[in-house]
Amino acid sequence: MLPRTPAKGMRDFLPTDFAFRQQVLNIIQKTYESYGFSRIETPAVENIQLLTSKQGGDNEKLIFKILKRGEKLQNATTDLCDLGLRYDLTVPLARFYSNNQGQLPAVFKAIQMDNVWRADRPQRGRFRQFVQCDIDIIGEPTNLAETELITATMNALSNLGFNDAKVRISDRRLLNALAECCGFTDEQKPAIFIALDKLDKIGVTGVMEEVEQIAPGKAVDFVNMLNRINSAPNPFAKCVEELGDFLPPAVRQNLEEILYVTNNSVKNGKVVFDVTLVRGMGYYTGTIYEISLEGLGSAVGGGGRYDKMIGKIIGTDVPACGFSIGFERIVLLMQERGITFEKNKGIAVLVDKNLDKKSLVDVMDACRQMRKTHNVTIINRIKNLGYQLKQLAEQGIDEIYEYKNGAFNKIN
Amino acid sequence: MLPRTPAKGMRDFLPTDFAFRQQVLNIIQKTYESYGFSRIETPAVENIQLLTSKQGGDNEKLIFKILKRGEKLQNATTDLCDLGLRYDLTVPLARFYSNNQGQLPAVFKAIQMDNVWRADRPQRGRFRQFVQCDIDIIGEPTNLAETELITATMNALSNLGFNDAKVRISDRRLLNALAECCGFTDEQKPAIFIALDKLDKIGVTGVMEEVEQIAPGKAVDFVNMLNRINSAPNPFAKCVEELGDFLPPAVRQNLEEILYVTNNSVKNGKVVFDVTLVRGMGYYTGTIYEISLEGLGSAVGGGGRYDKMIGKIIGTDVPACGFSIGFERIVLLMQERGITFEKNKGIAVLVDKNLDKKSLVDVMDACRQMRKTHNVTIINRIKNLGYQLKQLAEQGIDEIYEYKNGAFNKIN
Repeated sequence: MLPRTPAKGMRDFLPTDFAFRQQVLNIIQKTYESYGFSRIETPAVENIQLLTSKQGGDNEKLIFKILKRGEKLQNATTDLCDLGLRYDLTVPLARFYSNNQGQLPAVFKAIQMDNVWRADRPQRGRFRQFVQCDIDIIGEPTNLAETELITATMNALSNLGFNDAKVRISDRRLLNALAECCGFTDEQKPAIFIALDKLDKIGVTGVMEEVEQIAPGKAVDFVNMLNRINSAPNPFAKCVEELGDFLPPAVRQNLEEILYVTNNSVKNGKVVFDVTLVRGMGYYTGTIYEISLEGLGSAVGGGGRYDKMIGKIIGTDVPACGFSIGFERIVLLMQERGITFEKNKGIAVLVDKNLDKKSLVDVMDACRQMRKTHNVTIINRIKNLGYQLKQLAEQGIDEIYEYKNGAFNKIN
Repeated sequence: MLPRTPAKGMRDFLPTDFAFRQQVLNIIQKTYESYGFSRIETPAVENIQLLTSKQGGDNEKLIFKILKRGEKLQNATTDLCDLGLRYDLTVPLARFYSNNQGQLPAVFKAIQMDNVWRADRPQRGRFRQFVQCDIDIIGEPTNLAETELITATMNALSNLGFNDAKVRISDRRLLNALAECCGFTDEQKPAIFIALDKLDKIGVTGVMEEVEQIAPGKAVDFVNMLNRINSAPNPFAKCVEELGDFLPPAVRQNLEEILYVTNNSVKNGKVVFDVTLVRGMGYYTGTIYEISLEGLGSAVGGGGRYDKMIGKIIGTDVPACGFSIGFERIVLLMQERGITFEKNKGIAVLVDKNLDKKSLVDVMDACRQMRKTHNVTIINRIKNLGYQLKQLAEQGIDEIYEYKNGAFNKIN
C-alpha cells in the first residue's frame, strides 16, 4: 500500500482551509499594492551555491537538497547535490534583483508571498513547508524605506483584524556601539550577540552567564546597562546618553526619525526602541525590527536592512530593506481569535443518475445561465436524500433544486 | 561571485509577468468555482514511494529527488533519497483524497493550480518548474463527471478569449476493443498503443512500421481500419460498425452520451471522437480526452478517467476523472494573440530626500487617505526628474505629485 499521509511536517489544505488562506493572502497583497509594491515570483528551487553562501545563517543547515541527475550524478564524487529548496525569500530576491536589474525601476518595491522549506523538527505551529509574506524595497538608501515597510506591514495587520501590534526596533550599528562601549573585542561580539538574542528563551540570568563565559568580568556591567536603558521612561534617549560618542550620530538620527514618523503615521499599534533586539540572520547591516501581537511572546514578523547582500552577487552594493510576516502564525492567530470571512454560497442541482441525454442538455443550459452569477454544482441524486442534503449544507450550499420532468423544484 | 541566474530551466517572474499570470489563474479559478469546484493544495514535496509507484509513467524518470538528511543519510546504503518534488497534480490528489476522505463530500470536485517539477531537457516553452491547472471529480461513476469537466474546461478557455477549442475524445476500453478486433495479443497491446500515441510525431507510415515490427503481418489491416474510421462522415458511428461485438455496449453508450451532451452544451468549440487518441499516462481506465486550439498541433490540455488509482492507496477503488490545462501553453498563446488585461494604474508622490520628519508624517497621512482607493508609492525625488518620470510611467504610474512646502502639486 502506498503512503496516504503528506511528507513529514507538511500539510494538505482542504477547501475551507485553502479559501481562508487565499483570502488572507489576498488582503495582504491588496494592502501592499496600495503602498506601491508589486508581486514577483522566483522558482522554489535555487542553485545550491546560492543557498549555501553563508547568507542564511542557521537556516542553511535545514536545506532540502536535491540530488544531481543522470550523468552528473554518476560523475559526482563529493557533491551529490546541485540544487536545493529555498529556505527564505530574501536570498532568492537578491539573486532575482541581480538577474533582472536592467528591467527594474531604480527603487524597486517587491511583494513575495510563497512557500519556503526547512528540514526543521516539526512541532505545533512549525512546518517543513510554510508560506512567508515579504515586502522589500531595493535601491532606497534613506529611511523612507523603513518607514514605508513598517507602516505598510502594520496596515496589513490592521486589515486582517489585528489592532494590537507592536514593532520593536534597533540597529545593528547600535548593537556594535553597545558592544564597544562595554569593552567587548571584535572577536567576542558575535558570541555576545548570539547570547543576547536568546534573552526570550534563557532570561537575563541566562544571558549574563553566557556573557560571563565569553568575556569574564564584563557581564554584570553589560546587563546593568541594558537594565538602565530598558527601565528608563524613554529607553531610546537613555541609550543615546549611555552610549555617548560610541553611537554614530547618523545611527541615532536614523532611529529617531523612524520612531517619530512611524509612531505618528501608524494608527493600530506602536513602534518602540528595544536595545536587546538582535535578530539572527547574519546579513543585516543597519536597522532591524520585529513585530509582535499583544499577549504573544514570540514575533509574528521581522526584518531589517541588508545593504551588502546584493553586492555579493553583482559586485556592487545596492541598498535593500525588507519586512517579512510569518503567514502561518497569522493564520493560526486569526483562527484562534475567531476571525472569519463570508463563505462562498452555492447552488446544487440534483438529477437522476439515469437522466436521458436530452434532459441533461436542458439542465446544463439552465445551469450555464445560473453560473454567470452563482456557483452551481450538478450532482446525481442518491437514495438517502437526507444524507445528501446534509453533506451539501456542510459544503456551504444553501440552495438546492431537483430536476424532475423538465422542471427545477427547490427542495430545501 | 554567486550565481545570479535561476536554476536551469526555471524562471523569474517580473511584476508585469506575475500580474498577467495571476489574472489568468484568477479567471480559471472563478470559472471552475462557478461549476461547484473548490481549490485545495498539497505540498510540493511528496514521499518518494508515492512518486515512484509506476502511476506516473515516463514522468517518474524526471523526478527531482531530495537527499535524506542527518542520521538518515549517514545510515543510508542504497536509497539516498526519501522525498521528491511532484511531477504532476493527479498522483498527489489521489493521496490527498485517501488521507482526507472522511472530511470530503461523497462527490468531491477539486481545483488544483500549482507548480510541478520535471527534470526535462529545457527548450522553448518547456520548463523545469511549471504550473498546471487541474479539475477533478472524485466519487462520480457516471459520465456526469466527464460532461461537467469538459464543459467547465471549455468555458474557462472561452473566458480567457479562446473560442476555437476542440476536444478529441475516446476511451481506453475502446482502444482495447480495437486491438482485439485487429487480432493483437494482450502482450502486444501496450507496444501497439505506444506506437499509435506517436502518430503526431512519426505519421501514419511511422506507426505502420512500428506496428509491423510488434505484430508482423497485421499493420496494414490495422492502419486501414483507422483510415476507414477517420475518413467516414461520422467517425464514431463508423468505429462502432467496424468494432461490432468487440466494443462493449456500455462503452459505446458512454461515448455517445458524452458526445451528445457536450456538443449541445458547449458554445465555444466542438467535441469530436478520435479513434487514434491514446494519452501516455498508464493510469487511465476509461474515457480519455485532449483539447487543442485552432492552428496548433499539440494539445493544450487533457485528461480522463482513472478509477483504479485511489484503490492503490486505500485498497478500495473510487471512481475519479480529471481534466488538466497546460497553463504555460495558455499564457504563451494569450501573449502571442495579444490578449491583455487592464493594467493597475498608480500614483507616485515625490518627496525631497532631506524632508524633515514632521513633513514626512504629513505626506504619510495624505497617502493613507489616497491608499484607500489607489495604489500610492512615496519615493525620493532624484535630480534627473525626466528620467524618474519616464521610469514611473513604465511602471504604469500615471499620476505623479510632488510634495513641496506643505502642498501636493501634480507634475505630469
